[in-house]
Amino acid sequence: MYYAVIFTSIRTEIDSGYSEMAQKMEALAKLQKGFIGVESARNEIGITVSYWENLEAIRNWKSNMDHLLAQEKGKSTWYKNYKVRIAKIEREYEFGF
Amino acid sequence: MYYAVIFTSIRTEIDSGYSEMAQKMEALAKLQKGFIGVESARNEIGITVSYWENLEAIRNWKSNMDHLLAQEKGKSTWYKNYKVRIAKIEREYEFGF
Repeated sequence: MYYAVIFTSIRTEIDSGYSEMAQKMEALAKLQKGFIGVESARNEIGITVSYWENLEAIRNWKSNMDHLLAQEKGKSTWYKNYKVRIAKIEREYEFGF
Repeated sequence: MYYAVIFTSIRTEIDSGYSEMAQKMEALAKLQKGFIGVESARNEIGITVSYWENLEAIRNWKSNMDHLLAQEKGKSTWYKNYKVRIAKIEREYEFGF
């Protein structure tokens, strides 16, 4: 099976390049080895779930240099708080595709 | 560790009691044995992640009678498509809490 990274966050009120960076990071994630897909939505809370072939791909993405800079700016500026959960997909089913 | 149910969906344009049912199902889920928490956001796509103590709790909630009726109405009326992923949380970390 494969893995999901569930990233839930509450934003600060400071924009300061957030949308551009979010787009840039999504584009960069898509280029990584082992990347499968990503889905995002935000109202009061933001939820981004990215899907990866294995844990090594997740580790590599976490320590990517550009991503590390974005993570630092996330903590200093954009996010009030966030939580990251690494999860192994064990089963799935779908409707309507 | 614990489990997540990642529910991603695209809605139809038919409301027909959707918001009321979503609230009712969230309130009902919270009463279930083994329920830990739930987080939701929707823009183009909707993402709801619910957290559960074990797979049995997830199975019980899936087969809850009121929930089954909601699932049927979901397929006939509210959702263009959806995907459900059952995942085991293997690791987590957070910032700012």
